Amino acid sequence: MRIAGRHFLQIPGPTNVPDRILRAMDRPTIDHRSREFAALGRRVLEGVGTIFKCSGPVVIYPASGTGAWEAALVNTLSPDDRVLMYETGHFATLWRKMAERLGLDVDFIQGDWRAGVDATAIGARLKDDVAHAIKAVCVVHNETSTGCTTDIQAVRKAMDASGHPALLMVDVISSLGSIDYRHDEWGVDVTVGGSQKGLMLPPGLSFNAVGPKAISASQAARLKRSFWSWEEMISVNAGGFFPYTPATNLLYGLAEAVDMLHEEGLDNVFARHARHAEATRRAVDAWGLEVFCVNEKSYSNSLTAVLMPAGHSADRLRQTVLDAFDMSLGSGLSKVADRVFRIGHLGDLNDVTLAGTLSGVEMGLQLAGVPSRKGGVQAALDFLTPRPESR
Amino acid sequence: MRIAGRHFLQIPGPTNVPDRILRAMDRPTIDHRSREFAALGRRVLEGVGTIFKCSGPVVIYPASGTGAWEAALVNTLSPDDRVLMYETGHFATLWRKMAERLGLDVDFIQGDWRAGVDATAIGARLKDDVAHAIKAVCVVHNETSTGCTTDIQAVRKAMDASGHPALLMVDVISSLGSIDYRHDEWGVDVTVGGSQKGLMLPPGLSFNAVGPKAISASQAARLKRSFWSWEEMISVNAGGFFPYTPATNLLYGLAEAVDMLHEEGLDNVFARHARHAEATRRAVDAWGLEVFCVNEKSYSNSLTAVLMPAGHSADRLRQTVLDAFDMSLGSGLSKVADRVFRIGHLGDLNDVTLAGTLSGVEMGLQLAGVPSRKGGVQAALDFLTPRPESR
Amino acid sequence: MRIAGRHFLQIPGPTNVPDRILRAMDRPTIDHRSREFAALGRRVLEGVGTIFKCSGPVVIYPASGTGAWEAALVNTLSPDDRVLMYETGHFATLWRKMAERLGLDVDFIQGDWRAGVDATAIGARLKDDVAHAIKAVCVVHNETSTGCTTDIQAVRKAMDASGHPALLMVDVISSLGSIDYRHDEWGVDVTVGGSQKGLMLPPGLSFNAVGPKAISASQAARLKRSFWSWEEMISVNAGGFFPYTPATNLLYGLAEAVDMLHEEGLDNVFARHARHAEATRRAVDAWGLEVFCVNEKSYSNSLTAVLMPAGHSADRLRQTVLDAFDMSLGSGLSKVADRVFRIGHLGDLNDVTLAGTLSGVEMGLQLAGVPSRKGGVQAALDFLTPRPESR
Amino acid sequence: MRIAGRHFLQIPGPTNVPDRILRAMDRPTIDHRSREFAALGRRVLEGVGTIFKCSGPVVIYPASGTGAWEAALVNTLSPDDRVLMYETGHFATLWRKMAERLGLDVDFIQGDWRAGVDATAIGARLKDDVAHAIKAVCVVHNETSTGCTTDIQAVRKAMDASGHPALLMVDVISSLGSIDYRHDEWGVDVTVGGSQKGLMLPPGLSFNAVGPKAISASQAARLKRSFWSWEEMISVNAGGFFPYTPATNLLYGLAEAVDMLHEEGLDNVFARHARHAEATRRAVDAWGLEVFCVNEKSYSNSLTAVLMPAGHSADRLRQTVLDAFDMSLGSGLSKVADRVFRIGHLGDLNDVTLAGTLSGVEMGLQLAGVPSRKGGVQAALDFLTPRPESR
Repeated sequence: MRIAGRHFLQIPGPTNVPDRILRAMDRPTIDHRSREFAALGRRVLEGVGTIFKCSGPVVIYPASGTGAWEAALVNTLSPDDRVLMYETGHFATLWRKMAERLGLDVDFIQGDWRAGVDATAIGARLKDDVAHAIKAVCVVHNETSTGCTTDIQAVRKAMDASGHPALLMVDVISSLGSIDYRHDEWGVDVTVGGSQKGLMLPPGLSFNAVGPKAISASQAARLKRSFWSWEEMISVNAGGFFPYTPATNLLYGLAEAVDMLHEEGLDNVFARHARHAEATRRAVDAWGLEVFCVNEKSYSNSLTAVLMPAGHSADRLRQTVLDAFDMSLGSGLSKVADRVFRIGHLGDLNDVTLAGTLSGVEMGLQLAGVPSRKGGVQAALDFLTPRPESR
Repeated sequence: MRIAGRHFLQIPGPTNVPDRILRAMDRPTIDHRSREFAALGRRVLEGVGTIFKCSGPVVIYPASGTGAWEAALVNTLSPDDRVLMYETGHFATLWRKMAERLGLDVDFIQGDWRAGVDATAIGARLKDDVAHAIKAVCVVHNETSTGCTTDIQAVRKAMDASGHPALLMVDVISSLGSIDYRHDEWGVDVTVGGSQKGLMLPPGLSFNAVGPKAISASQAARLKRSFWSWEEMISVNAGGFFPYTPATNLLYGLAEAVDMLHEEGLDNVFARHARHAEATRRAVDAWGLEVFCVNEKSYSNSLTAVLMPAGHSADRLRQTVLDAFDMSLGSGLSKVADRVFRIGHLGDLNDVTLAGTLSGVEMGLQLAGVPSRKGGVQAALDFLTPRPESR
Repeated sequence: MRIAGRHFLQIPGPTNVPDRILRAMDRPTIDHRSREFAALGRRVLEGVGTIFKCSGPVVIYPASGTGAWEAALVNTLSPDDRVLMYETGHFATLWRKMAERLGLDVDFIQGDWRAGVDATAIGARLKDDVAHAIKAVCVVHNETSTGCTTDIQAVRKAMDASGHPALLMVDVISSLGSIDYRHDEWGVDVTVGGSQKGLMLPPGLSFNAVGPKAISASQAARLKRSFWSWEEMISVNAGGFFPYTPATNLLYGLAEAVDMLHEEGLDNVFARHARHAEATRRAVDAWGLEVFCVNEKSYSNSLTAVLMPAGHSADRLRQTVLDAFDMSLGSGLSKVADRVFRIGHLGDLNDVTLAGTLSGVEMGLQLAGVPSRKGGVQAALDFLTPRPESR
Repeated sequence: MRIAGRHFLQIPGPTNVPDRILRAMDRPTIDHRSREFAALGRRVLEGVGTIFKCSGPVVIYPASGTGAWEAALVNTLSPDDRVLMYETGHFATLWRKMAERLGLDVDFIQGDWRAGVDATAIGARLKDDVAHAIKAVCVVHNETSTGCTTDIQAVRKAMDASGHPALLMVDVISSLGSIDYRHDEWGVDVTVGGSQKGLMLPPGLSFNAVGPKAISASQAARLKRSFWSWEEMISVNAGGFFPYTPATNLLYGLAEAVDMLHEEGLDNVFARHARHAEATRRAVDAWGLEVFCVNEKSYSNSLTAVLMPAGHSADRLRQTVLDAFDMSLGSGLSKVADRVFRIGHLGDLNDVTLAGTLSGVEMGLQLAGVPSRKGGVQAALDFLTPRPESR
């Protein structure tokens, strides 16, 4: 039986791709060695830098986000190099696993998943490393599995305070285009991004924004690399081209996405995400449920993970919501599997779609018999409604 | 400044066109004299009959809905013929105006717009017409300007009881595919439909479902006609073709729309609309506002018109909602201009989109300073939430 | 079995709709009473005037081309009015048939279909009509069934020379956007156009470009009209709106089409069509076949009708071409059914697509065993190839 | 100035993406952890195997083709392993370069680019390698830079005859879906494919079809890998899922592409490519130019590289063709830069489009003043025209 109406894709990415982007991609592929392509190439290469706030090169890979993690590591590091990572959640853990597979020696600071990175712990570990064995600090800006963000400036300051020369690498896959981020200003060496979240594109592109210190490191780095190698990419990118076949149709979409973000204004984009996140947390609170992130300063504006009451299955709730209301919510991953569900409120979203989303959750909680109060949507609406107009 | 997110088009038509239909239309136009076209032609001609529940011909015009009104009149009537119409609202009044322009003598029974047709009044008028001067009774099934429906079976019965031979013509522009309708079973002679409401298509197609008595009448009818003439249409349609260029790309969409309605099941489609209408009325009631339709039996499942508190402008509210929440509501028309606004809940809609819609109205009422209570969305959710699952 | 590759739609309309237009139409329908719509409405209403070269109103109907014929007649004429028409081919004959159905008295000058209108015959008939019984002269600019054009300026001059006050109405359905046309400059009173040929849109829109004399005539005209009535249209169009539901998605496409024609430049568009028509005629000549149009001055730039050798079926050839090469050619209509086939070379076309088209015809002639020589494509290429570059 | 008509993308990939595939991709991205996705995942994973004719796993990477080269190497080999490669052209040379960057020891058999792999040379080298230092033989099935194919069965036989246990890896990026290929039957261990050629998709997906011997090798292989690792991919693919975010919208297109190839029938697809290639070579011959590939048995059915007369620039010709006829041809690469141009005739192509393509080349040769004869298109048409029908 057909289900009427538009599916609500409220996972924390991929996000709802706007029609304008889908339509921009729905065009014949062009010759990737033509002048027309070069104009497109230059446009997206420059454009995406304004989103990362990176004045240096941003490498665009025709590969989904995980690839850009690998690229950041293999371009800057050598076999057995030590890297400092921090367990903010599932994705930080996956990055660690990748680093180990690639032959790196990972120092993984344990975290409880309910907050972002503790910058002081980073600083302490670096201070202890008098031999400077640690070559890079890798942190996740917005941990998609938990809805906790990390204060990247604080990490930078802790690193600076320690006087340690390690590179700083930051994963912004689920924060870019949703939460303020500043590659240059915050002194990040490699920023790792993807297309399918705040950039509102389908998955298939990923990014390395690269600072000068990372470029230097890449010249000495001895991890083997070819597909991911920055060197040829950056060199060929200068003309608007790519050393191997780019994902042209996704680049059409990227050009459109960059325009759309600037048409709205990045600050407006961030404010909108902040507003929707606060409305969502007020709904969670009104339902009598618990936001998984326990540190207010770490609340994510991209998504909200919600802790289920003990003994209740998050996955059963998600299935109920999907079956009854045709809405997808994010699942809890690994350590918090079935214990949390995640509401994505990032990307191309407005107040009424958020209200519909929270309505779906509230009805789903009732329908699935999860102990909770009504009134979450009302609380969100109370917050979202602007002050009455004076007449 | 770009506004993020998807526009909510909650007017009572055109409705939100599903992606699947837009994509079906986004194809090269084909030769309208080819075998491939004939297969398409037969498919849509047969398919649309199942939606009208009409076993006779359904003429498809490459023209928007108003054209099909004209077609119904010019194919069956002669200059100065008397027709009986009933003032259910703005659209019934426009149909009358058209009939007069076409040289017909309209007997227009006045109504107060807050209910559907009073079948007994029709019956009485017909009984008085012993000379059978009245050649047709024309009524609107669902008056889009008011949100009041008419009991077509009751009209039929009143006509039958009067023993009067007038034709029965029914406008189902905003009910077809939303509210149960049965051309054959209810003894309708001409049914007038359009593409842009329950059929979920863009505007540009309209329909005359034609019964045998209407076919007979058309043979004697002397109003001039060419573009709208049934005769050549029906004859050429037999082979899957059209006598002049059809709106091929809209026919692609129509084929898809018919499939989609049957995939969901027409009875499910009607039940869904009834459920959404009831939820909407509960919201209106909770807001302390008044549903414009005063007769429960006449409540429309396609749209709900809401009466504004005295002294408050419906158009100002609509503008507030559009500006603040990127949602379009229907305006009050002519007699009720600025006094009512209309919430469309027809076409391709699900619970969470309806919840978002009602949230936009509720926030808009607050923001515009319209005296009203909160809690409308909550009332709707309470109604929409299925009984909790037993576990 | 699937047939690989892109279908070649080389009928004289509908033409190949460019992706850019299809994609422009592949967007959600908007509220036709909104400010956003008004901007669109104004844009297309003004834009389309630049294509007709008409400074007065251009009425846009949400109906396919035949409707605009009817509109031209019912807005300007009264029952039993005499109109002068000229048999240039199938479509002129259909227009006559329509006029008769609408109650007009048609004086139909016979023609042999192999040339355009003989302006002197028009002049003579008007001079004879001392009582000015003839109210309008209706001619087809480019007769789609024959590939013969008419010199509209010559008709105008003949009318002026006769001192007769009849209106001049011109059908440009298959010439607009392909062959130079100037409503104002040529003194036309009503120009009738459609969307699916030179405007490169799918069928579903049609046009009346209206001059001041026609406006005056409409005030006295007594043919019944409502859907087609100019009066309310023109009045409501002033604000960018339409009196009844417009075909919004086709209007999206129209806005794009007007932009595209101006981006290329109308004079370039006409020169391109002239070049492709000449190349096609050279191919026909090289094949040893006969261009149906016998008057060089009347050669159409939109299409070329080709006469089959006696005893050979044009429809069989067309079917062979369709089956073997997935290309649609136009059929001969009524008087020339099965005796001519028509090659459409209008709309969004380039040299290599034309070369492919002619190749399909040449191979089809061979395959179907039609007596003919090879070398048509070569002749076309010889003509199409620019002079070698000097180096 | 806008250029009218459809661009002819006649490079040897990316190829012209059919509307049906573009439209399939023009849909909202879905949750990649949902049941709906799992059905899609299973469909494409199974489907693509039928194109590779591989009964084992086919790994689908959300990355463009070059990535799949890297994947083949890093999954099966260890640092300093020796691999035997063969210089068939630019792409074979790039693969060699990649292997060296990844730390492999490449034995690169020199070739003159004008033929495919000499299988006897492979056999000889393997026989000499009594110590079995060579771990893999890597060859390109269809060298996109030269239009020469390699007889993979002959390579297999030579390997078998030598009794050498090296793996056989084959790049089918520009042959898959155009030229017959049989992973299982031909005893290939790893086949490397991409989306943007015979599969008719935009770039962004690539493939490793994997045989059992390669799976075994991967368990011992010590090159570092994470993103490209088969192990987790194959394990998670079993459920229809992917270990990291897949390129969902490209997978929509892939499902459609597989259906389309089977609707046409793979053998018909190959026959069509063979026919178009032969027609193209006849045109080249008639022009008095030289097909770059000198070995008839190596002629590619995907593309034809054409050698320019001495002293004439291929790139200038290509620019002339692009500027005058809006058609893209492939450039000569590295060793043959500016000396050859390449005509792509693979993917979704029919006879009339090929005829248009060859017309564009023939006119371009004239226009650019390249010494050549006319008559190439005619020669192609003579070949393409089926025998006349008996009547």
